[in-house]
Amino acid sequence: MQIAILLFERVTVLDAIGPFEVLQHLPGAQVVFVGERAGTVRSETGSLGLTVDASLGEVTSPDVVLVPGGPGQSDHMADGPVHRWLRAVDQTSTWTTSVCTGSLILAAAGLLTGRRAATYWLAVDELAAFGAVPSRERFTFDGKYATAAGVSSGLDMALALAGRIAGERRAQGIQLGIEYDPHPPYDVGSPETAPADLVEELRGTSRFRR
Amino acid sequence: MQIAILLFERVTVLDAIGPFEVLQHLPGAQVVFVGERAGTVRSETGSLGLTVDASLGEVTSPDVVLVPGGPGQSDHMADGPVHRWLRAVDQTSTWTTSVCTGSLILAAAGLLTGRRAATYWLAVDELAAFGAVPSRERFTFDGKYATAAGVSSGLDMALALAGRIAGERRAQGIQLGIEYDPHPPYDVGSPETAPADLVEELRGTSRFRR
Repeated sequence: MQIAILLFERVTVLDAIGPFEVLQHLPGAQVVFVGERAGTVRSETGSLGLTVDASLGEVTSPDVVLVPGGPGQSDHMADGPVHRWLRAVDQTSTWTTSVCTGSLILAAAGLLTGRRAATYWLAVDELAAFGAVPSRERFTFDGKYATAAGVSSGLDMALALAGRIAGERRAQGIQLGIEYDPHPPYDVGSPETAPADLVEELRGTSRFRR
Repeated sequence: MQIAILLFERVTVLDAIGPFEVLQHLPGAQVVFVGERAGTVRSETGSLGLTVDASLGEVTSPDVVLVPGGPGQSDHMADGPVHRWLRAVDQTSTWTTSVCTGSLILAAAGLLTGRRAATYWLAVDELAAFGAVPSRERFTFDGKYATAAGVSSGLDMALALAGRIAGERRAQGIQLGIEYDPHPPYDVGSPETAPADLVEELRGTSRFRR
């Protein structure tokens, strides 16, 4: 089972690594990090370099495709090599997935039209503008499309996906293996639970503000 | 504020990236990924390459030090360059921290002797053998030493640490920014909540079994 995780400049690393940490432990999983060019891309703020091992043309029929988000998402909203690759691999993928603003890339490539999909809480309107039907769930399954909300939500989506792929018992073993028993120190992780003034503060500095 | 995150071969990527995703958003944060040699290291199963931007000798006085774990931890239990570096930077660090089996490296370097510390649930006895006092908490603060339990727990530890460094409001903004409102699909993320037979199954294949 080949799992292709897309990388690009200014990716939000946790978007990719949350699901990676889960899915790599599936039986028979072979994970490949893929991008426009083999080489190195840098994270959101430039602090971390990540190796792109395979160019798009080298990965032609992954079973699972995962598209992370991050500030660099905005470079991949126009039709181009990434969209063409996504549409091509989506023809044969078992699961096409995204985390955070990765769903905007999937939507812009035309793969989420009319489908329910999750995204980063600040990008909900943007997702709707690209023809998807935004959910406000932690993650959403619509057919073979699994989309997660912001950044850290990829962990939850990937565990649910692992359950569908390999059964609950295996997914639970992975969850225990990564000791995923979250105890956030604050209850402010979504705009529904955070104080209204904090929500407004983040909206005010968001690249998606209108 | 310089934050140095140690990388080594066969690191568990989420151990490093959970805290990275939180701490990089602290005011004035400058994150540097450091290792024995500048270049690339590969993850736990080899699937991902991560760039080490600075060698140990280039990072002499970080404010925060973070040591992740993973199978490669076992290569860093004997005295050597990594231990010497940890002891040196610990002299001036504001916070010395670890995730998962990273606490075994800190303990082997002599930095956790007599201190309460968290670690991966399968490594509790090992941590005690190196002179620390294992907690079974999600994360533990003992003076300037902040240690997290397994893999995913670095997110919780880092948010609590962010609160101590920059105040609760800033930490809460970071938590909302990464939409950390976890909804694990199963309640099996610790040995206390997982089914006993699943716990035994993982114990049976652990590299720490005795």
